[in-house]
Amino acid sequence: MGHGRTLEYPKTPVNRVNRYNQRATYDLEQIHTIINTSTVVHVSFNTPDASNPFPVTLPMVGVAASFEHPSSSLGEPLDIYLHGYVSSRLMNLSRNAGQAAQDNPTTASTDGSGGETAQGLPVTISATLVDGLVLTLTPNTHDVNYRSATVFGYANLVTSLEEKLWAMEQVTNSVVRDRWRHTRVPPDGAEMQSTSILRVKVVGGSGKVRVGGPRDELKDLKRDDIRDKVWTGVIPVWECFGEPVEYKGVVQGDEKGNRVDNVPDHVREFAREMREQNEKYALAAVADTSQD
Amino acid sequence: MGHGRTLEYPKTPVNRVNRYNQRATYDLEQIHTIINTSTVVHVSFNTPDASNPFPVTLPMVGVAASFEHPSSSLGEPLDIYLHGYVSSRLMNLSRNAGQAAQDNPTTASTDGSGGETAQGLPVTISATLVDGLVLTLTPNTHDVNYRSATVFGYANLVTSLEEKLWAMEQVTNSVVRDRWRHTRVPPDGAEMQSTSILRVKVVGGSGKVRVGGPRDELKDLKRDDIRDKVWTGVIPVWECFGEPVEYKGVVQGDEKGNRVDNVPDHVREFAREMREQNEKYALAAVADTSQD
Repeated sequence: MGHGRTLEYPKTPVNRVNRYNQRATYDLEQIHTIINTSTVVHVSFNTPDASNPFPVTLPMVGVAASFEHPSSSLGEPLDIYLHGYVSSRLMNLSRNAGQAAQDNPTTASTDGSGGETAQGLPVTISATLVDGLVLTLTPNTHDVNYRSATVFGYANLVTSLEEKLWAMEQVTNSVVRDRWRHTRVPPDGAEMQSTSILRVKVVGGSGKVRVGGPRDELKDLKRDDIRDKVWTGVIPVWECFGEPVEYKGVVQGDEKGNRVDNVPDHVREFAREMREQNEKYALAAVADTSQD
Repeated sequence: MGHGRTLEYPKTPVNRVNRYNQRATYDLEQIHTIINTSTVVHVSFNTPDASNPFPVTLPMVGVAASFEHPSSSLGEPLDIYLHGYVSSRLMNLSRNAGQAAQDNPTTASTDGSGGETAQGLPVTISATLVDGLVLTLTPNTHDVNYRSATVFGYANLVTSLEEKLWAMEQVTNSVVRDRWRHTRVPPDGAEMQSTSILRVKVVGGSGKVRVGGPRDELKDLKRDDIRDKVWTGVIPVWECFGEPVEYKGVVQGDEKGNRVDNVPDHVREFAREMREQNEKYALAAVADTSQD
């Protein structure tokens, strides 16, 4: 929509980035972009079992978007929609949380154990993109170019069919741009029934970004013997999308593949653009001196 | 060392992978390999603040290794060593946990809130590598080829200088193979003092791996109109390591760069091998029919 304003998540004791503050960001657009650029995000939450002190962390497919305001830009408040490939435990906990909210709609506080609450299941969603390995004169100053985002909020199962269908399209297209309308849609009743989508109402977040080359300490830079011996620089790193591998005709005796003549543009061009764009970002990050 | 045995993490309610069990792994070698292949891992833990129900998740550099048995293979029990670039909060919590252990050495139980305990700070460490986007006839059967590992255990600050120095070398070489001895080492007293290393005693873990091509449902495969229209296949994805970018001579008016003539083998060959090996894995994953 574009209100000409830049929104930030509020700084609180929970999300404050304590170290290297020059790298910290609370900017919604930057944080949402990192999440939507990551194919997989990590979702962490606590189980109700008090004898288990370890958060559970699951890799999931997620997208930042708004069903209430679908034309929202990445710089505006958004929910995170998660698709539950691997998370039957998470889905069950969120279902229970939703039930607790119905049973006891006035309880807005948490139970302190990190388990489900009337607002939903508290979850933390993290995404990190590695952009380069930074090699300096001594191990302690070695670093990584990266973009990292964390948001936290309350997860609930999406129950409205309309919102679920919309979210499935957002999730699909967040993995492969414009894929949804090029597939057999809409999902049939059984598919809608068996698909679980979580909506996370985000209450806060933060990000960190490291760019640039080596930053050595003066004590090493002053010593020619070290600079003569130790190579410094950056190995750029990016996620490469290869040429699409088609699945055609008879596979292991069964008719399994597609019968489309050529790899369509929405697949081939997407892979090519991602490949180029990701390499371009990694190289630009090396050359970026804004944090020097 | 190689005992000719295959070790697994025990299946418990905490780590059991409930869905798609054909993809689950409890094999130590596979889980440790995924962690050591990931440049960055995600570390999740709870804060002692009972009013904060959200796990904190931080991206960190980590390596699976054993100081007590340094010649251990990846298939043997290992600790996870974490380097604290971005984790002053985590380091402080672990320091407190270590103090609690000293003050009250007989308390081995957790406090139930997921905060620090006499055993250390409970943490969950996750790593996920994306190997491909799997495009099928209908959105619900779309999938991702990936390798994912989660381990959980108790984190403590490494206090012995000998173990810390050893761990710093393991961490450095886990990011860039064989880098340590090609830099200015050992760290001086101030560097040893300012560097924090966490050792996580692992108590359990699990992994998941998805390989192969599209797996469509019969109801769609039977319909020629769908197979005529919808392209199916895999976009292979891998972490690409680019040509090293050297940092030489005078940078912005200051003598900053190295004075080494050529990019040394331990950097150039490492980047080349990683690039080739990662692409090779992604393509092999597409062709792998073991989960069909």
